[in-house]
Amino acid sequence: MKIYDYKGFPNPARVRAALAEKNATDKVQFVNVDVLKGEHRLPEFVSKNPSASVPCLELDDGTYISECSAITEYIDHTFPGISLTGTTAKERAVIHMMQRRAEQGVLDAVSTYFHHATPGLGALELYQNKEWGLKQHERALAGMRYFNDFLAHQPYAAGENFSVADITLFFGLSFADAAKISIPADCTELVAWRARIAKRASMGGTGS
Amino acid sequence: MKIYDYKGFPNPARVRAALAEKNATDKVQFVNVDVLKGEHRLPEFVSKNPSASVPCLELDDGTYISECSAITEYIDHTFPGISLTGTTAKERAVIHMMQRRAEQGVLDAVSTYFHHATPGLGALELYQNKEWGLKQHERALAGMRYFNDFLAHQPYAAGENFSVADITLFFGLSFADAAKISIPADCTELVAWRARIAKRASMGGTGS
Ligand SMILES: N[C@@H](CCC(=O)N[C@@H](CS)C(=O)NCC(=O)O)C(=O)O
Ligand SMILES: N[C@@H](CCC(=O)N[C@@H](CS)C(=O)NCC(=O)O)C(=O)O
Repeated sequence: MKIYDYKGFPNPARVRAALAEKNATDKVQFVNVDVLKGEHRLPEFVSKNPSASVPCLELDDGTYISECSAITEYIDHTFPGISLTGTTAKERAVIHMMQRRAEQGVLDAVSTYFHHATPGLGALELYQNKEWGLKQHERALAGMRYFNDFLAHQPYAAGENFSVADITLFFGLSFADAAKISIPADCTELVAWRARIAKRASMGGTGS
Repeated sequence: MKIYDYKGFPNPARVRAALAEKNATDKVQFVNVDVLKGEHRLPEFVSKNPSASVPCLELDDGTYISECSAITEYIDHTFPGISLTGTTAKERAVIHMMQRRAEQGVLDAVSTYFHHATPGLGALELYQNKEWGLKQHERALAGMRYFNDFLAHQPYAAGENFSVADITLFFGLSFADAAKISIPADCTELVAWRARIAKRASMGGTGS
C-alpha cells in the first residue's frame, strides 16, 4: 500500500493523522509528489488521480483512492483500533455529516480563499476569482463559529468521541494559519479544543 | 423517522431514491419544507440544518442528519437489502470516492452554475458570482466526460455494482436538465447508463 503525497501540506496531513491514530503509519510506503514543482499535474499522476491533487492511496491490487475522506474510510476499515468513521448507523451518519461540515465549511473554504484571493501557489494558479475567494473567507469564519458553538456542548467535532471530523477540522485550522485567516477572538471553545487535539500523538503532540 | 424535504428537487430526490432502493420509503414520514417560499431559511428549520437546505433527516431520538451522503449512510446501515455504500474496506472507499466525484464534479457544479450564472431561485439568490457560475458549467461538462469514459469500462458509477454514486450522478444529470446544461453529444456511454438507471423502480422506472 502506497500513499502519494507531499509532506507538510494540509490534505496529506489528514491521512497521515488517520494512519497514526490507527498505529498504521509503518504499513504504508510514502511516495513524494512535488506539488510546488507541479508534479501532481503530470499525466502520470493525473492517471492515478484525475483531480490532480494529493494525497492518493494505491492499493496492492493497483486500485487508486483519492479524497482524504475516502482514504480514511479505507484506513478505518482495514486497521484495528480506534474507530474514526463510526460503527452504528447513527454514528456513521453523524460523523459523515460533521466531517463534511468541517471540510466544506472550514478546510475547503480556507483552501478556496487561499487559491483565489491570495497569491496561493503562485504560477500554479491558472484561474483565480478573487471575489469568490473573499466570499469563502467569510464562509470559513462562519464555519469556525459553527464549530465553536458546537464544541461548547460537545468534546469533539462529531460529538462524544474523537473521529475523522476532528482530523479535518484540525487541519482546516492549520491551513487557516498558513493562509493567514485568524480564528475569531471570541471562538474560545474552538481554540481550547484545538489545544487539546494538538496533544494527541497522531497530531505530533506528546500525548494528553 | 422524518425527512424534511421538497418533492421534485434534485437533492431530496437522492434520498428518496436511496429509500426506494431499500424498500423503506414507507418507514419514513415526509415533512414538506417549501423552499420556493424560503421556509428552509426560517430559524425553525435552520436550527435543524444550519446549512439551510433540504433534505434533512430527523431520527426518533431527535438527532438531525443533513447532507444526502450522510443520510444515505444512515439509511444504508439501518435497512436490509442492497448495499448502497459498500461492505468491504475497498468497496467503501471506492464508492465514497466516486460519490464525491459525482457530487463535486457534476451535481454541485451544476447547482453552483444554476445558483450563480442563471436567475436560479430568483429572489432567494442573495449573492451571485456569475463568472464563478460559468466556470462551474465547464466543470460540470468535465465531470460528465469523466464519467462517460469511466462508464465505457464499468457498468455503474463506482464500478461493478449499483451504489449511492449512481444515485448522485443520476440526479446530477436531472439537475443539469433543469439548469439547461446539455450532456455533450459524444457522451454516449453516459447517456446509455442513464437510460439503464432510469428503468430502476427507485428512479420511477418500471424495472429492467
Ligand atoms: N478534497 C481533496 C483535496 C486535496 C487537495 O486539494 N490537496 C492539495 C494539497 S493540500 C493539492 O494537491 N493541491 C494541488 C493544487 O492546488 O494544484 C482531498 O480530500 O484529498
Ligand atoms: N449538499 C447538500 C445539498 C442540499 C441542497 O442544496 N438542497 C437544495 C434543494 S435541491 C436546497 O435546499 N436549496 C435551497 C437554497 O438554495 O436556498 C446535500 O447533499 O443535501
